[in-house]
Amino acid sequence: MKTLKIAAIPGDGIGKEVVPAAIDVLNTVSDIHGGLTFDFTSFPWSCEYYLEHNKMMPDDGMERLQDFDSIFLGAVGDSNLVPDHISLWGLLIKIRREFDQVINIRPAKVMSGVRSPFINPKDFDIVVVRENSEGEYSAIGGNIYNGEDELAIQNAVFSRKGTERVMRYAFELAAKRKKHVTSATKSNGITYSMPFWDKIFKEIAKEYPEISTDSQHIDALSAFFVTRPERFDVIVASNLFGDILSDLGAAIMGNIGIAPSANINVNGKYPSMFEPVHGSAPDIVGKGIANPIGQIWTAKMMLDHFGEEDLGNTLLTVIESVTNDGILTPDLGGKHSTKEVTNEIIKRLIAVD
Amino acid sequence: MKTLKIAAIPGDGIGKEVVPAAIDVLNTVSDIHGGLTFDFTSFPWSCEYYLEHNKMMPDDGMERLQDFDSIFLGAVGDSNLVPDHISLWGLLIKIRREFDQVINIRPAKVMSGVRSPFINPKDFDIVVVRENSEGEYSAIGGNIYNGEDELAIQNAVFSRKGTERVMRYAFELAAKRKKHVTSATKSNGITYSMPFWDKIFKEIAKEYPEISTDSQHIDALSAFFVTRPERFDVIVASNLFGDILSDLGAAIMGNIGIAPSANINVNGKYPSMFEPVHGSAPDIVGKGIANPIGQIWTAKMMLDHFGEEDLGNTLLTVIESVTNDGILTPDLGGKHSTKEVTNEIIKRLIAVD
Ligand SMILES: CC(C)[C@H](C(=O)O)[C@@H](O)C(=O)O
Ligand SMILES: CC(C)[C@H](C(=O)O)[C@@H](O)C(=O)O
Repeated sequence: MKTLKIAAIPGDGIGKEVVPAAIDVLNTVSDIHGGLTFDFTSFPWSCEYYLEHNKMMPDDGMERLQDFDSIFLGAVGDSNLVPDHISLWGLLIKIRREFDQVINIRPAKVMSGVRSPFINPKDFDIVVVRENSEGEYSAIGGNIYNGEDELAIQNAVFSRKGTERVMRYAFELAAKRKKHVTSATKSNGITYSMPFWDKIFKEIAKEYPEISTDSQHIDALSAFFVTRPERFDVIVASNLFGDILSDLGAAIMGNIGIAPSANINVNGKYPSMFEPVHGSAPDIVGKGIANPIGQIWTAKMMLDHFGEEDLGNTLLTVIESVTNDGILTPDLGGKHSTKEVTNEIIKRLIAVD
Repeated sequence: MKTLKIAAIPGDGIGKEVVPAAIDVLNTVSDIHGGLTFDFTSFPWSCEYYLEHNKMMPDDGMERLQDFDSIFLGAVGDSNLVPDHISLWGLLIKIRREFDQVINIRPAKVMSGVRSPFINPKDFDIVVVRENSEGEYSAIGGNIYNGEDELAIQNAVFSRKGTERVMRYAFELAAKRKKHVTSATKSNGITYSMPFWDKIFKEIAKEYPEISTDSQHIDALSAFFVTRPERFDVIVASNLFGDILSDLGAAIMGNIGIAPSANINVNGKYPSMFEPVHGSAPDIVGKGIANPIGQIWTAKMMLDHFGEEDLGNTLLTVIESVTNDGILTPDLGGKHSTKEVTNEIIKRLIAVD
């Protein structure tokens, strides 16, 4: 009997609608599996929490999370309540960094029954491996002067350690897949960090002679990513470029509501965190129509992470059988509610058993 | 009789194929107009030039360009010959900066006869107004340490002056269009430069109460840009975000080969520069199949800039009549050569006369 202790942080907006849905699904997975139990503890940390406490989590928040096997997060941020950089750096990004979740994995693939907005979606299957701890997202910088001379400076920081680490992760992943890694760069415009990125990419590529590679500037890469997604396998990208590419991945899959992600701690010291790519979507909160698939597919990534790939694959197959039958929320052109989609997934999971 | 002195810099790769094509078109425009002549001087500055002279342009290159009415550029960069950051900062970016071409305008709209990769291409018509002199493209930064501690730092620099300037330009443009400006931000992840960007956007928006606005993070914005392009009018973006969005604009129009751009000098001290969005495309050089439309549409933007909007509009109408009749290069699914497309445009221009 294996019990996994999961910290659930629904966060803001539709996070509070899709996390409970995915927890129901995970409990069903546990029921059909027998030997696996999830022990969920829920934390109300969010922008609303901030309005009450003037912080996004209590002072001992990180300590309280530390002993969980993983963190299952919905969405953070509601700029009507709290400026985004405060809410994000106080919760989501804080956890990514303080728990050394240095790799962010974001798959994008054709989902049966989900109409991609593109003509002729070839059968693409991409994983964006995103650096998750440094790069363009730094807390280093500041402002100088007032009035017309005002200036803001932001430092992007790329370490050899962080860059090698994310690239090795991408090559190892590609070795198990179609054996190709594309590097997202912008060394023609950005003159220190990106040539450094390119240099390290060339070095690491030499360690993996069986993996083919190419390197593309983020502008052209973004364009090819949406028009020729079938050409890609694994893409390794900096924090910012990975962020952009993974939202584009969600777009070509059909909608941001279905895209999952995993923030992986690789040194074994802290829990990893699983969260969908979508945000808190304040515009549809409370309508019961949030797409639960991003969060449920994220649950599949968590199962994989715990070595339960068979269960993870079963769950993904069930998700696709539901989308394939047109049981879809409005964002995908359907008429079904969050609850209906979730219940259908649960029903079919039980039937698979 | 008006004579415009144009410095032509074909640059690298297909730049050398499409610039002469567009010059032929401009000469035809001059013939049909009567009162307008172009006086072209061509400069061979390119990566090949670099291999011979160890620089991208002669030491007095900028002085020689200074007295032209505008610069008409093809494409710069061929990383097989010269590292991109050297070729670009030695020519394209050097001209943008030293000639205070602080605004980069990049339209994206549905072109009749050009199959967009979308199932349901709505009738979109967007202009990306890109900051062109600072931001993430800075030459400030460096490396520290060797071996495993190696670190690269890159500074992004946003000035109030530069930020206000590009935003005002965007609002003025929107006032002549559908009266909406979208700001591309990433203030949830990037903590100094982007909140500064947001603050100035709010200030400038107040100066234009008749223009509606919204602000979107670049990840979500990129996704909406490709799936819901009809929702946008003018988008104002930093140097890097504008670069990415404009390539996405090219992608949703059908192909990067057709997208034009203008680098505008706003202080009246130096010439502006006109260049298509595409690069030098070394893979198709010499085959005679490069799409000339990006460069010819760029010529239209140059005509507009010189106050010849009627001629510019005639040229765009002719371009669209040619694409509409399926006279397309292979990148757009056609079978025609650079020459055939160009000659057809010339023929129809003469017929319009
Ligand atoms: C070649 C490169 C430096 C350039 C840029 O990023 O500005 C190009 O992509 C463009 O968009 O004009
Ligand atoms: C909310 C934001 C800070 C975050 C990011 O940019 O990392 C989000 O867009 C994501 O992709 O997880």
